[in-house]
Amino acid sequence: MPSDAEAFFTVLEELVDQARHRLHAWKVQQEAVPPAPAAILSPEPPRPPGVKTATARVDPATLVKASDLAPYIDHTLLKPEARAEDIVRVAEEARQYGFATVCVNSCHVATAARVLDGATAVPIAVVGFPLGAALSSAKAFEAREAIRAGAREIDMVLNLGALKAHDYQRVHQDIAAVVEASHPVPVKVILETGHLTDEEKVVACALSKAAGAAFVKTSTGFGPGGATVKDIELMRAVVGDDVGVKASGGVRSAEDAVKLIRAGANRLGASASVAIVTGQISTAQY
Amino acid sequence: MPSDAEAFFTVLEELVDQARHRLHAWKVQQEAVPPAPAAILSPEPPRPPGVKTATARVDPATLVKASDLAPYIDHTLLKPEARAEDIVRVAEEARQYGFATVCVNSCHVATAARVLDGATAVPIAVVGFPLGAALSSAKAFEAREAIRAGAREIDMVLNLGALKAHDYQRVHQDIAAVVEASHPVPVKVILETGHLTDEEKVVACALSKAAGAAFVKTSTGFGPGGATVKDIELMRAVVGDDVGVKASGGVRSAEDAVKLIRAGANRLGASASVAIVTGQISTAQY
Repeated sequence: MPSDAEAFFTVLEELVDQARHRLHAWKVQQEAVPPAPAAILSPEPPRPPGVKTATARVDPATLVKASDLAPYIDHTLLKPEARAEDIVRVAEEARQYGFATVCVNSCHVATAARVLDGATAVPIAVVGFPLGAALSSAKAFEAREAIRAGAREIDMVLNLGALKAHDYQRVHQDIAAVVEASHPVPVKVILETGHLTDEEKVVACALSKAAGAAFVKTSTGFGPGGATVKDIELMRAVVGDDVGVKASGGVRSAEDAVKLIRAGANRLGASASVAIVTGQISTAQY
Repeated sequence: MPSDAEAFFTVLEELVDQARHRLHAWKVQQEAVPPAPAAILSPEPPRPPGVKTATARVDPATLVKASDLAPYIDHTLLKPEARAEDIVRVAEEARQYGFATVCVNSCHVATAARVLDGATAVPIAVVGFPLGAALSSAKAFEAREAIRAGAREIDMVLNLGALKAHDYQRVHQDIAAVVEASHPVPVKVILETGHLTDEEKVVACALSKAAGAAFVKTSTGFGPGGATVKDIELMRAVVGDDVGVKASGGVRSAEDAVKLIRAGANRLGASASVAIVTGQISTAQY
């Protein structure tokens, strides 16, 4: 049985949470004020520098050479045995080749942020990674701490077990908790498509969009399978153009990259990023 | 820039957290009130019910039948796609067969705790799992939240990258942060031996003991390799008898279990637990 004091703190926490929700609702209302010339409030709070929110399809005609892929690539190093010096190398590559971001585990965000200071590339932190089975409060806290350490995008893993159990309210709340903790930093939701049926992929995309995610993303790279053209087409069909689609897992060549962009991806997660942008796009195939 | 209201909520949250810590300190002090006439301070604050801290080697002569292994087994279900109903089944098996614990991801602790209410088996939450590459603050927070949800042991993954980089201060601080957040709940440190050299295993055991861990543990089950007799012997040699040794990863039969206990393990992590305790120990082999 909780003591009186424990019960009091629980109530206090709930009140803080309620107050937060009310503030959020109030803000949404404020933002909904028409942004006409007379607008007193700006239609959207200013985003902190480095936040990228382009979500729509990429025109494949703009991809003439392999290096044109760079701004769509999240240069990724998530191996648990990666050392700080490996993170430094990857961040320097991102700066050199003009990748969109560097995607690292949260313990490495500060290192990546230091190397990327002043660069167009920004750090992504993965959260609840790669199982997605941490408590929602722990995922939200990790996101907030990673942002404090310099993360400018968050890639979270959804709660697969809750999705499998059709507990859609929990899936939604889990995503919403991270989105709220991360605001205004955009949040990508990793579906781990290799574990899902097509129906589950559709549901996951819908719940991600409903909960305020900026992107849906295929895979962690630690689970079964990776990004497929079929999955990207399905995900883009569900979320439309105002939520982004990130293809990740097994993206190893410029050919893979272009195929996935044609299917609807506007961001690619890869560790072979340098090979991709220094290779050749075999346009004959498309 | 956070708004005034946001800043206010952050301060409020910090105050709730501080109050929580003061309550905890006060409780520990209350519990430390002398239980005996002579003792001014008890040598250690009493452990809450359900906390298990046996750490020494197990006498293999006490293992006559396979079911004798049950009190040393952490019955484990960590697959990300596990649903609440799968957790309920595993917890019911733990109650039925008398396993030491049920080991689950932190999002499932409350479910396990509910099923195990009143049982000798208690819930373990894994933390920073399975990569160990989350921020230390995030690991510590996840541990605290998991304990609030009912966890009575914490199995954390150490920061492999910091170990590989010889950043021993960071490895130590990472473990100490989780130990402190979890107190008095015992913390196991997962080394992920499949990634480590023998020297790194020795260092990891020493740092875990120095940072107040209750156990060292071989593997997550998600990385390369699993528990080996050689690793268990090495780990036990380093930590002695006042820190426990948990063998996990690939423990599938009573034979495996007995071999690892003979090598020095006093806890076994397994998902094949029911098969293990209902099988036969082929004593001829040992």
